[in-house]
Amino acid sequence: MLLEEGIPAYSVYHLDSLLIDTSLLGFDLEKYGHIGFGMEVLRTERDSEDDTWEQPWGEEHYVHNHYNELLVELMQPEYPYRRLNIYFRAYDDGIAFRYEFPRQDDDMDTVVILDEQTQFQLTEDPTVWWTPGDWDIYEHLYNTTKFSKIDALSKQNHPNLAQTYIPQNAVNTPVTMRLQDGVHLTFHEAHLEDYAGMTLAVDNENLLMTSALVGSDRLGYKVKRAIPFETPWRTVQISDDAIGLLNSRMILNLNPPSKIKDLSWFTPMKYAGIWWEMHLDKSTWDMASGRHGATTEHAMELIDFAAANGLKGVLVEGWNTGWEHWIGFEDREGVFDFVTPYADYDLDSVVAYGKSKGVDIIMHHETSAAVRTYDQQLDTAFQLMQSLDLHMVKTGYVGKIIPAGEYHHGQYMVNHYRRVVETAAKYHIAIDAHEPIKDTGERRTWPNFVSREGMRGQEFNAWASDGGNPPEHLPIVAYTRMMAGPFDFTPGVFNLSLKPYKQHNQINTTLAQQLALYVVIYSPVQMACDLPENYAHPAFQFIRDVGVDWEQSIPLNGEVGNWITMAREERGTGNWFVGAITDENARDVQVDFSFLPAGTSFAATVYRDGKTAHYRKDPYSLTIETMTITPETNLTFHLAPGGGLAISLMKETAPE
Amino acid sequence: MLLEEGIPAYSVYHLDSLLIDTSLLGFDLEKYGHIGFGMEVLRTERDSEDDTWEQPWGEEHYVHNHYNELLVELMQPEYPYRRLNIYFRAYDDGIAFRYEFPRQDDDMDTVVILDEQTQFQLTEDPTVWWTPGDWDIYEHLYNTTKFSKIDALSKQNHPNLAQTYIPQNAVNTPVTMRLQDGVHLTFHEAHLEDYAGMTLAVDNENLLMTSALVGSDRLGYKVKRAIPFETPWRTVQISDDAIGLLNSRMILNLNPPSKIKDLSWFTPMKYAGIWWEMHLDKSTWDMASGRHGATTEHAMELIDFAAANGLKGVLVEGWNTGWEHWIGFEDREGVFDFVTPYADYDLDSVVAYGKSKGVDIIMHHETSAAVRTYDQQLDTAFQLMQSLDLHMVKTGYVGKIIPAGEYHHGQYMVNHYRRVVETAAKYHIAIDAHEPIKDTGERRTWPNFVSREGMRGQEFNAWASDGGNPPEHLPIVAYTRMMAGPFDFTPGVFNLSLKPYKQHNQINTTLAQQLALYVVIYSPVQMACDLPENYAHPAFQFIRDVGVDWEQSIPLNGEVGNWITMAREERGTGNWFVGAITDENARDVQVDFSFLPAGTSFAATVYRDGKTAHYRKDPYSLTIETMTITPETNLTFHLAPGGGLAISLMKETAPE
Repeated sequence: MLLEEGIPAYSVYHLDSLLIDTSLLGFDLEKYGHIGFGMEVLRTERDSEDDTWEQPWGEEHYVHNHYNELLVELMQPEYPYRRLNIYFRAYDDGIAFRYEFPRQDDDMDTVVILDEQTQFQLTEDPTVWWTPGDWDIYEHLYNTTKFSKIDALSKQNHPNLAQTYIPQNAVNTPVTMRLQDGVHLTFHEAHLEDYAGMTLAVDNENLLMTSALVGSDRLGYKVKRAIPFETPWRTVQISDDAIGLLNSRMILNLNPPSKIKDLSWFTPMKYAGIWWEMHLDKSTWDMASGRHGATTEHAMELIDFAAANGLKGVLVEGWNTGWEHWIGFEDREGVFDFVTPYADYDLDSVVAYGKSKGVDIIMHHETSAAVRTYDQQLDTAFQLMQSLDLHMVKTGYVGKIIPAGEYHHGQYMVNHYRRVVETAAKYHIAIDAHEPIKDTGERRTWPNFVSREGMRGQEFNAWASDGGNPPEHLPIVAYTRMMAGPFDFTPGVFNLSLKPYKQHNQINTTLAQQLALYVVIYSPVQMACDLPENYAHPAFQFIRDVGVDWEQSIPLNGEVGNWITMAREERGTGNWFVGAITDENARDVQVDFSFLPAGTSFAATVYRDGKTAHYRKDPYSLTIETMTITPETNLTFHLAPGGGLAISLMKETAPE
Repeated sequence: MLLEEGIPAYSVYHLDSLLIDTSLLGFDLEKYGHIGFGMEVLRTERDSEDDTWEQPWGEEHYVHNHYNELLVELMQPEYPYRRLNIYFRAYDDGIAFRYEFPRQDDDMDTVVILDEQTQFQLTEDPTVWWTPGDWDIYEHLYNTTKFSKIDALSKQNHPNLAQTYIPQNAVNTPVTMRLQDGVHLTFHEAHLEDYAGMTLAVDNENLLMTSALVGSDRLGYKVKRAIPFETPWRTVQISDDAIGLLNSRMILNLNPPSKIKDLSWFTPMKYAGIWWEMHLDKSTWDMASGRHGATTEHAMELIDFAAANGLKGVLVEGWNTGWEHWIGFEDREGVFDFVTPYADYDLDSVVAYGKSKGVDIIMHHETSAAVRTYDQQLDTAFQLMQSLDLHMVKTGYVGKIIPAGEYHHGQYMVNHYRRVVETAAKYHIAIDAHEPIKDTGERRTWPNFVSREGMRGQEFNAWASDGGNPPEHLPIVAYTRMMAGPFDFTPGVFNLSLKPYKQHNQINTTLAQQLALYVVIYSPVQMACDLPENYAHPAFQFIRDVGVDWEQSIPLNGEVGNWITMAREERGTGNWFVGAITDENARDVQVDFSFLPAGTSFAATVYRDGKTAHYRKDPYSLTIETMTITPETNLTFHLAPGGGLAISLMKETAPE
């Protein structure tokens, strides 16, 4: 709609209720001032689509894409006839809109956006699960407050974060809210390309959110683009209940189809690695300590472990020189070169040994946020991987971005992350980015962006001074961060007490919950992160068995921050897996197996919390039961405080 | 005592009750007639011993040896002053006696024994768990009858046995009996060397057993020995209850100390192998079938599997040429040479690959009972093993003994088996004999005789036309065959239905019982016999964890043929394992953990029958629970029909 004075605006209804009240649209531009008033509708165009596309891997094989689109072309009626187009889409699972800066009638061929002025006017004061609108890192715990109580600025200077910058009272996306009538909304964006990440500035009093793009102190603006261009989609996913949010594929649908034709070189996998031991201080990334983790011998041990347990990858961190000059140093450019192994790590032999065992080394490129260095090294680094027939790298961006004045979530970095993934595709390399830009669905376009971090991961449990992730963390993440896309949480800690390595930290889940995470969390790469010696446990069979690529995913029940129960069918096998996790409260979770195909029968193994299980008092108490499960089965399982439930359902191939 | 007419005789009291009434002693000799009448006591001598000796490995580390001995020297008072000495020993756990043929006053320097006439006169009609006195094979199911109803001759011509010869109504030893007052007796022999195995002829009417030695049709006698010599000990182990029998070490104590000084080359181990698949008809021993099991590639797969799961050996059967000319052929001499691998089996590469993984190939020498061939090849075969640094061989003696007229349990074969083990010791080789002579404790003298078969093993479950071993089989074996010594039952079948390989057979136990067998059965070599792919199950962790060498063993409760509960402490770790198995009846079994050291705490994993478990209807139903167990713990566990219970108790190293 256009308000008086020609201001573009929109509102959102869900059934009969007004979800988002009149919200203004527009931009503040350098030189050209505010765009978003005095406009007239030049033309509108309607379009719709209803088709299904195939994911190469994913939480479901075939994605339904069904929307109606309205294009509104706006123009100021007087010179310079400033134009702005807006695409609105209505999906069954939400709404989205994006701006287009079309060619202008004057000499305006570039815009410098000082900020985007997109409003989201709430109509009540919902409960919000939010992290602060940090320009540099997403690794904050979620806060649960009324919208009117959001106070992101109180989250400054977190002692557990290497870098953080929260310039105003804003939240990061995805951010999920529950309205009084139980409707749930997730605000996010899709197809973030050559643009700055969006935070949402919070006006507590007026229940209003306004887009606040991540900026560049170096350049003094938020975004610079040549005309014509389109912004990312601004999205609101809508569901009548919490669990329904997880059925939404709108973010993916808003991205362009894959640009990679041949993806045969990558297969979803579980992996082991030399990583958790560094967080336990058992070994170090650097060699100077005398406790270097990434040695030839140790990597081969991990390969043996992986090969024996069906894990197809081994991540080796700390393999390359430079770790003596990492966190804590300002001058981090030119330190890492991503091709020079430490003296005690024979890269070629390790890779060859892995190949002989059907296990690929997962490369590791810690940039230490020295982005120019990585850009310069990128081809060289990927050429080495190509020469070794390696197809996945975990990248890292710990620390303040170099060049100074840039932030992890600004346009400069958005472009860097995109350049890396596009370059990687040429070399048949998949990217698992840590300290990444948030996922806005570009895995549809670049499926080699297989996973990323972008939330407070397992490693915080090893050393965070706040005691690690509380039990509610993942039952929130499942409805917030996971709305963006796959994430590499690295579950599977069995030595939950972290003894003898850590005296003041422990994992705040039961053992059963660690198993359940392999089903609850979607990622085509899932780490079994604990030390191999801790997997001498019957429950490890679940990790061996569990799938990483899914024909379909069926969220069964849950409430944000309380619990979630998820069922997923493995692609290609017909096996199913069920995972449930709860927060600090025990609860009974019902699993109605009617989602199984009629007439089938499954040899099920149930991994559930034992009688005395409790995330703090007795995290190891676990009961494993084998049973036959059919679509007629309907069971209630008890989850302990901080507990979980994991069920493997192996299709019975031969009739009994 | 000497009866009237100078007949030597003995009787046995236990506390105040007469267990064995007056029983005559003597021999029928060729040329010299009956020895055992008209004797007088020339001299008696008393001796005693109370010491402790160390086993290199075993069901307990230190064995207490405490007895009082009476030597009775008998002599006929007239020419030729025939002499016979008898040693009687009284232990806390039974009685034993042996004959000595001392130097004689005349020219008698050799005796040819037509039969030994040693009586065991029962005083009531006990319940007996017996197998027929077969001269050729021990692999019969046990019968449970009153003594008066023993009918061994009805067991002739068993369709599942390759050879069998039961010449009279006799039973083999060990044979166990229960008296009305609950006292249990096991009759057996110890230190069987250069003598024939003893069966016990049954006189149903008079409740009398008489020694009936295994003979030689070829030679027409039972035993031929140069004087002086001693016979094996005739033994009666006595306990007030069934379970107490299993504390008896009398058989070991009656054997001479070890003749091997350096045993560092052998370590007790679990092992995998290419074996069960032949019994499933998945592959074959021979190469002509086109389904040869022992290929280089497959052996390496088994090595990988073993290495990944802490199994230190891989048995490869069918590795050497000759299997096309095996069972069913009369002319089996010179067929196997034990040094020529099949063309598709690269012995050197397989052994080297195993060595690189810390896994030793277990050699296999199937003699097909062509004993002369094996005798001729023995040094050559062992030299090959020595050159490959291999230290264990499984021997086999399937079929009728060549030379014809000899039987597996006669003096000829007793000497052969002993010659093999003595020769093996020179080459630092351990023997696991199948189709062996029964164990009479010679592992004390020759610890390299590490295990043997000598009962109806797991393989009968794969193909026996009688439906395999019934659930009562092992709860009988534990109190009968196991009284002789370790046995290589090869437990651990997880694919209990045997599908898709077998339509008419299955294992008649639950999955939990297969685990329990690793604790119930003592053997320093224990196979995980199933196909590696069937071990993708959480319960396999128990097999990974369970010990094979014990500091001590504590039989907890049980009744012959009904159930047994055994606790064993692993040597060197302080970890404990508990196993319980039951027959076709469900039952509750109590485990009082007060046997654990005071002040200790264990991280326990309990593997028990699931709610619906039943050896036939639902053998897979299994529940695994983790819990903390202390000496104060006292729990009752439910065992399903054909069910079991296995508990691993891992010593908690660090205080919580």
